[in-house]
Amino acid sequence: MKLKSFYSFLTKDLEVIENELLSSVQTKDPLIREAGIHLLQAGGKRIRPVFVLLSGMFGDYNIDRMKPVAVALELIHSASLVHDDVIDNAELRRGKPTVNAKWDNRIAMYVGDYLFARALEIITELDEPLIHRVLSKALVELCLGEIEQINDKYNFDQSYRTYVKRIKRKTALLIAVSCQLGALASGAPESVCKKLYLYGYYVGISYQIIDDLLDFTSTEEELGKPVGSDLLQGNITLPVLFAMQNEELRKKIVKINNQTTAEEIKPIIYEIKKSRAIEQSMNISDRYLQKSFHQLEGLKHGKARTSLYNIAKYIGKRKF
Amino acid sequence: MKLKSFYSFLTKDLEVIENELLSSVQTKDPLIREAGIHLLQAGGKRIRPVFVLLSGMFGDYNIDRMKPVAVALELIHSASLVHDDVIDNAELRRGKPTVNAKWDNRIAMYVGDYLFARALEIITELDEPLIHRVLSKALVELCLGEIEQINDKYNFDQSYRTYVKRIKRKTALLIAVSCQLGALASGAPESVCKKLYLYGYYVGISYQIIDDLLDFTSTEEELGKPVGSDLLQGNITLPVLFAMQNEELRKKIVKINNQTTAEEIKPIIYEIKKSRAIEQSMNISDRYLQKSFHQLEGLKHGKARTSLYNIAKYIGKRKF
Repeated sequence: MKLKSFYSFLTKDLEVIENELLSSVQTKDPLIREAGIHLLQAGGKRIRPVFVLLSGMFGDYNIDRMKPVAVALELIHSASLVHDDVIDNAELRRGKPTVNAKWDNRIAMYVGDYLFARALEIITELDEPLIHRVLSKALVELCLGEIEQINDKYNFDQSYRTYVKRIKRKTALLIAVSCQLGALASGAPESVCKKLYLYGYYVGISYQIIDDLLDFTSTEEELGKPVGSDLLQGNITLPVLFAMQNEELRKKIVKINNQTTAEEIKPIIYEIKKSRAIEQSMNISDRYLQKSFHQLEGLKHGKARTSLYNIAKYIGKRKF
Repeated sequence: MKLKSFYSFLTKDLEVIENELLSSVQTKDPLIREAGIHLLQAGGKRIRPVFVLLSGMFGDYNIDRMKPVAVALELIHSASLVHDDVIDNAELRRGKPTVNAKWDNRIAMYVGDYLFARALEIITELDEPLIHRVLSKALVELCLGEIEQINDKYNFDQSYRTYVKRIKRKTALLIAVSCQLGALASGAPESVCKKLYLYGYYVGISYQIIDDLLDFTSTEEELGKPVGSDLLQGNITLPVLFAMQNEELRKKIVKINNQTTAEEIKPIIYEIKKSRAIEQSMNISDRYLQKSFHQLEGLKHGKARTSLYNIAKYIGKRKF
């Protein structure tokens, strides 16, 4: 079953969001326009807008109010990808050249800045200061997460806790906030916003664990970038942390540094794939998924809740 | 007379802002904290906070409401400097090593992101959506200005209009918004906010012209960076545009590119300094100053207005 089939009733509204996203980068500046469109058209699942819309269905759903929230969240997500790619010197994203590769790092930096700023501008179309507050706070946390990721590069002495804290800031928070703000903007009660926030948070953690896992188990074709890119770039993810519990494997892993080549890392990737680390990571992901289901139980029955449930389940089993 | 003497009555409130600025970078992350403090302590005139406070005196002045506005504006200014220095590969800023030089470009990018995000978070302490709207819109324009500056590098075919548009986005807008939001946050009438916005806009243009001029006429010691850095980096400023009206000089200037060395550019800097370009630029700056005075005339008499007048006059005559 395809992910989209779980929310086919949103097709029309997601098109509205898509158009709005594209028009958000329609500036007179040709560089921003081209780079922005290139970035947005490189795809992505638009999962944050989906979470916004579904969460909005727990209140007084109105697409005009959902629009700025969904667009802002997706723009922030895109901006963070652009800045990520600068840091990682990444050449490809979803199989297409990155902004830094197609233009250069300086352009990518400002395109990211522009998208961040546009996101915050767009959200101010809504009059609730609380919404602005939540979004800007999430942005601060996101930046802290990015810096932590740099600090923790090639640092093999990090704990499971450090990892979770990092992916919370890097991924989970923005998904949590997508759900929270969708609900808030549609006037859902505070208790509902809270449950949706937590649902998003748990799903986000689970999603990132799977993402980190797929970096080992997927194919270059599916990933749109080489297998094991994370480890090569020094990003220590959950499968690596588990793999290091094996003393032999640990010795090999800690030797990885920014001089290590893609060729040299291949046998290590292979060993991690064969180890129990993949299954162990999957179990942790599952535990977070269960927590997300638990939050949904407190919410009213209906197609929004069913969709959120199905999406979470899908995320737990996704192959790419 | 020193600039500070024009607003000595603000000393205590400026200290409040200064402490708040430093505490805005107090995070658990040691890198952000260190880089943030390094950046803020490198000085700067805090002229944006001064404009916020003085403009606030045209309404119901309250330091608690001025604080988030002043801090947000100064943080955005600092963030844009950090990102500027990444683009320019600048080593020094106000005589001290830049964040990119002391750490690296990646850290500088995220420190800038963090400061942008913090600024927008801090402004949401105030409940008025209009304030959030104005600030985020200014940030969008600022980013567009930065990208224009990259696009226009070593482009010797630009007009006076292009130049003014660029410095509007790069400098004048943030000063205009400092005045506007100071007034808005203190509940000043709309007509007053508008006049202060325009005052700030004209002062900002004048300020940047002088800045661009000082890059030629000042000393390395006063600038805290080599004389003629702008031109060497391909930033075509007003004195250069005027100097190019001389056909002989034009021929030499248009040969400058990103391979030109500091040594090679020295004789050209010398010729620009000796040409009428400096005086012509000064005249344009003066014209904008007059416009700023004109806006002040419509505002109520008092020490705030006197200060704004004196600051503008000082800016027109400043030597560094």
